[in-house]
Amino acid sequence: MLIDALQYILPSRAVFLQMREANMSAVHVTVGYHENFLSVVENLQSWNYWFEECGDLISRAMTHSDILAANVAGKTAILFGLQNPLPFSADLARVELLHQLGIRFCQITYNQQSLLGSGCFEPVDSGLTAFGREVVNEMNRVGMIIDLSHAGHKTAMDVVAFSKRPVTVTHANPHKWHRVPRNLNCDLLQAISDTGGMVGFSLYPHHLNQGSRCTLTSFSEMVADMIRCYGTKMFGIGSDLCQDQPDKVVNWMRNGHWRKSPVPSAAFPEPVSWFSDNSDFPGLAIGLRGAGLSEPEISGILGENWITFWEKGFVGVC
Amino acid sequence: MLIDALQYILPSRAVFLQMREANMSAVHVTVGYHENFLSVVENLQSWNYWFEECGDLISRAMTHSDILAANVAGKTAILFGLQNPLPFSADLARVELLHQLGIRFCQITYNQQSLLGSGCFEPVDSGLTAFGREVVNEMNRVGMIIDLSHAGHKTAMDVVAFSKRPVTVTHANPHKWHRVPRNLNCDLLQAISDTGGMVGFSLYPHHLNQGSRCTLTSFSEMVADMIRCYGTKMFGIGSDLCQDQPDKVVNWMRNGHWRKSPVPSAAFPEPVSWFSDNSDFPGLAIGLRGAGLSEPEISGILGENWITFWEKGFVGVC
Repeated sequence: MLIDALQYILPSRAVFLQMREANMSAVHVTVGYHENFLSVVENLQSWNYWFEECGDLISRAMTHSDILAANVAGKTAILFGLQNPLPFSADLARVELLHQLGIRFCQITYNQQSLLGSGCFEPVDSGLTAFGREVVNEMNRVGMIIDLSHAGHKTAMDVVAFSKRPVTVTHANPHKWHRVPRNLNCDLLQAISDTGGMVGFSLYPHHLNQGSRCTLTSFSEMVADMIRCYGTKMFGIGSDLCQDQPDKVVNWMRNGHWRKSPVPSAAFPEPVSWFSDNSDFPGLAIGLRGAGLSEPEISGILGENWITFWEKGFVGVC
Repeated sequence: MLIDALQYILPSRAVFLQMREANMSAVHVTVGYHENFLSVVENLQSWNYWFEECGDLISRAMTHSDILAANVAGKTAILFGLQNPLPFSADLARVELLHQLGIRFCQITYNQQSLLGSGCFEPVDSGLTAFGREVVNEMNRVGMIIDLSHAGHKTAMDVVAFSKRPVTVTHANPHKWHRVPRNLNCDLLQAISDTGGMVGFSLYPHHLNQGSRCTLTSFSEMVADMIRCYGTKMFGIGSDLCQDQPDKVVNWMRNGHWRKSPVPSAAFPEPVSWFSDNSDFPGLAIGLRGAGLSEPEISGILGENWITFWEKGFVGVC
């Protein structure tokens, strides 16, 4: 079972064909960065079109059993998530409604301040807000998985402490290996470990030691080190693959509509040579094997750990 | 000239008739608390109806000269403002668009965390956010007056320091007189004074010393004290009058859609005996006279100071 817990692909039949060739079991795709509620709904509508158009290759998944059924039918399960809680606006009822529309993951914030908490690039991190607590409770209730990627450290620590259910970071790496605001320090990794949460290792060059020149060996040794520290079950892959997205999307990801100033030379970084699209996913096993991971550990990292986590995580407690 | 810089009335011909009988020159009315963009647009649509229906009594004002023209025609000028930047969502372009629709005032936040800053009831106040700086710059540019009512202290101090133009608190009183989170401490009053900003004194019982039992004498002596500390020009009235609003609105004001828990016994406080509707506004002069204010000082407080501030404040710098 191969699962990527974070991709932001430009959907196309070609990408879905590649997912099938790589035998991907499930992919969590982002359907909102800076989009407001209606724009997310429109994104979901366009995904409805893709499920109709490419129903021989992909299948919408809202539950654990949807993923298994998709795989039995020879299809890749697609799950939806938000990298920004902006579509909730200040309306708590939007959590359940977006869950009904298939959203199974949502970040507390995306880089800057949200109504729930502070991002990893916000100058001051004030932690989980009063509304943030309400939303965490509601996500816990309906079975929407909390994703701390892009959150500030204090905000992330607050959420781990406050959430009644284990939380995830779908796409990031440890500070210990590459110290950038988007990666995770030991305190947070320990807190996630202590509460039964999960972390997906990112393959986005800005999150990698040596960036685009990072080797599969270096990445795999980092994975092996993390497993030694926190155990095998806590980790998976959330590649942050932005397959086929044009460079202009980088400007959208960074600035949304919230500021006018364009980022100088905004472009996607050169991908690492060993991971540039969905066809490279199975090859990660070679690196992990080289770093000494056992076959069950490799299966865990590449998919089994996520499916185990999601089986409980998608179930509401109403 | 009589100006009330903050009311949240339930619009009706009866209220507008009372404004005319009291000879109100201008009233800033709130058109959004927890409303999202579309709900604010709907509120503005309903105001278009009122201007058509009661065009003999009230007139929409978008500029200083609109106010003067309304008064020459024997009408009360109505100006629009938001107590919450929620309708901006994370979209900077909404500032100019809402200005085009007539919004002339907007708060940085309403009690809790907004995308711009923290409210006076948010547990942690992290100050003005990165997006908040963009919005402050844009409000400065288009001529939308910044209102720090309901903001946290650090957030308010940050905004005063960051804004290129003077800011206001449309409705609050000093901590020195009544220490509640909604009122203002000396540092903030001094910072507003130093930068040429303005404060409107509130007549909402929760902001008054002794609450509903506050006397006009006590209120007027507080005003006189503030004038001694900071001068006459800095102050006006922003009564926070919620004329004809049903008690259920209190629950909306406090909880919006952001939490489920209803506030126990949510109801409007009993108004003070000397200020319960628009007809009481002119009578404030009696109290201020009793506290020793000169006639020019009284005229300043009851309207002239706001009109002077607004004359510059509504002008964009594009």
